[in-house]
Amino acid sequence: MSTTLITGISELVTMDPAHGPAPSAATRPHLGVIERAAIVVDNDAVLWSGPQSTAPDADEHVDLGGRAVIPGFVDSHTHIVFAGDRSREFEARMAGDPYDGGGIATTMAATRDADEPTLAANARSLLTEMHEQGTTTVEIKSGYGLSVADEVRMLRAAATLTPETTFLGAHVVPPEYRDDRAAYVDLVSGPMLDACAPYVRWADVFCEPGAPTAFDADESRAVLTAAGKAGLGLRVHAGQLGPGPGVALGVELGAASVDHCTHLTDADITMLAEAAPDGPVATLLPGVEFSTRSPYPQARRLLDAGVLVALATDCNPGSSFTSSMPFCIALAVRDMGMTAAEALWAATEGGARALRRTDVGNLRPGSRPHLCVLDAPSYRHLPYRPGVPIASTLEL
Amino acid sequence: MSTTLITGISELVTMDPAHGPAPSAATRPHLGVIERAAIVVDNDAVLWSGPQSTAPDADEHVDLGGRAVIPGFVDSHTHIVFAGDRSREFEARMAGDPYDGGGIATTMAATRDADEPTLAANARSLLTEMHEQGTTTVEIKSGYGLSVADEVRMLRAAATLTPETTFLGAHVVPPEYRDDRAAYVDLVSGPMLDACAPYVRWADVFCEPGAPTAFDADESRAVLTAAGKAGLGLRVHAGQLGPGPGVALGVELGAASVDHCTHLTDADITMLAEAAPDGPVATLLPGVEFSTRSPYPQARRLLDAGVLVALATDCNPGSSFTSSMPFCIALAVRDMGMTAAEALWAATEGGARALRRTDVGNLRPGSRPHLCVLDAPSYRHLPYRPGVPIASTLEL
Ligand SMILES: [Zn+2]
Ligand SMILES: [Zn+2]
Repeated sequence: MSTTLITGISELVTMDPAHGPAPSAATRPHLGVIERAAIVVDNDAVLWSGPQSTAPDADEHVDLGGRAVIPGFVDSHTHIVFAGDRSREFEARMAGDPYDGGGIATTMAATRDADEPTLAANARSLLTEMHEQGTTTVEIKSGYGLSVADEVRMLRAAATLTPETTFLGAHVVPPEYRDDRAAYVDLVSGPMLDACAPYVRWADVFCEPGAPTAFDADESRAVLTAAGKAGLGLRVHAGQLGPGPGVALGVELGAASVDHCTHLTDADITMLAEAAPDGPVATLLPGVEFSTRSPYPQARRLLDAGVLVALATDCNPGSSFTSSMPFCIALAVRDMGMTAAEALWAATEGGARALRRTDVGNLRPGSRPHLCVLDAPSYRHLPYRPGVPIASTLEL
Repeated sequence: MSTTLITGISELVTMDPAHGPAPSAATRPHLGVIERAAIVVDNDAVLWSGPQSTAPDADEHVDLGGRAVIPGFVDSHTHIVFAGDRSREFEARMAGDPYDGGGIATTMAATRDADEPTLAANARSLLTEMHEQGTTTVEIKSGYGLSVADEVRMLRAAATLTPETTFLGAHVVPPEYRDDRAAYVDLVSGPMLDACAPYVRWADVFCEPGAPTAFDADESRAVLTAAGKAGLGLRVHAGQLGPGPGVALGVELGAASVDHCTHLTDADITMLAEAAPDGPVATLLPGVEFSTRSPYPQARRLLDAGVLVALATDCNPGSSFTSSMPFCIALAVRDMGMTAAEALWAATEGGARALRRTDVGNLRPGSRPHLCVLDAPSYRHLPYRPGVPIASTLEL
């Protein structure tokens, strides 16, 4: 297999404890930064990294002319399999108009109407958009089908695009089950789960007792327990709209991630900190707060308590139609009190931890050769240059 | 000269009063939208636009497959000729650290040290970045040289890149004149202006009496009056840090634009409204508020009073290192109460008005063929898809 030596790297972020200076307050956590670096990869793995002056030979040679290289972003929370357009709903929300255009039901109806190739093509187009912005690992959830056949169709489409697929039959209680929620929970925990399980690695629930179409603690526990028995890893949408039982449930059931965490009690944070580093990662989704004009999650409380934090886009047509991890990093630094180093870690290694992956989100020897190149000398330019597409995936 | 017919346009924004439905509350001002449109251009001008079904023939044919087309963005306020990197200063500011790394003096020193080809290459690289994001007209200011030779060098570099060059010798009082401000004002209004005038269309001052290194009303009037006599159009940095005399001065002297307008009195707004539409455009620069964590300008007060509003990036290494007009649009909609239509108008036609141009910022027949294509069906996706690089200049 052919090897490639990449030189001209002003700053290489490896996440390797073997590299780089001890972190300071501004550069915690340890990013494993090498300046004037080189890296050698083959198609499968990172083989070597270090100062350019000590680089070994390789079959091919690429020079980046003084750009920074970071691990490809790991976007551990998306809903990119869907059909329909909700830009008018967004416009109305921004204007403060009551019109909601049907909300998530619009996407559900359009997704149910779409065939599998259409769903796959829409998602592939967003995946390409993400890839062009430096994202190399993407999780994709179901949850707009909400019938056995429609959830299976979404997930078969998703499974052609990523191994990180998530069954989210418990996204909302669909209209036809509003008068019999228990029957829907039984469906999701039974036949729908059985039909979807072959296509997924994960199961997730939207646990938000305050929202009438979401799921309370008992309903969420029923779905997640069944999913766990079926061999799936677990994730929870928790604390998006208000404090609730989602975080505690995630800790109790050993979920890999609790997502949103916009509203947390002190007890939630203590639980997450005590469960760290093997308990749930707190996955923050600031694109949602941006696009719904909501208060941002308090990342500093989590970080200062020792909780592992990930950043993801939540890319979806309703509440966060961004696919840009650099944009999420800029918001995390501006509005959530994270340092550039913390935000970069959360968008790479943090996302990998939330997916229980050790082979992505870092550039340690043996990890996947997913390189994100910045049109800038340092990762610090990600929040410094908001909205500018400086990150792209390096094609080898 | 060869003509090109462009079809497959889901939505064409022309800014032509002859086109499109009457505007509603959400689509005010009148964007001149044509759905399922086509446009014919040659190298110099827009020749025709209308429904695709009625399109004439042309020499060449391009099909966009269902994308929106808008006028190329007009970025009427930038400082992209400079040298040096201030990402560490940005990082410290975000962390709340007192370190400012020297602030603007850092850029001044690095710019004075750089030769003209280096300055031109740096600016060209940012101009290319802007072009790739759909910006087709860019104003560039001096103001980091602050000596006759250094200002001339900056502006000669800028003049190779755009006709919209602005002499900003009155950006700050440089260190060597802190004890004799009057001498610096005399220099800027006299020999420096004379040396720079051949390379510029505009003159600008940073009028901010509360800032010790900026200029008060009398100093600003002296510089702008001299510039007006030299035949230059006038612009004013006004009300960035606090309310001040900048807006009144802009109205008094017939400036084309008053920029920032973060802090305005009711009297300022009344003056701008009474002077509209021929008086100064209020050019808002939300990238600055994003990157300095400041309160955003109150665009609604201006719009509701009938003031013409432009959006620009203020792209500069200190307070706003974004080059993205779509990002500014997203901030305007989320944080400044503007509709998508108002923000799009401000970023195109508004910028053109701020530069007193009628041939850009619109796609009326006879205007320049500067087409920005969106990877989306509608301009509404600009704020709906924050951080995503959906806008690009159509290369013909
Ligand atoms: Zn979600
Ligand atoms: Zn400025």
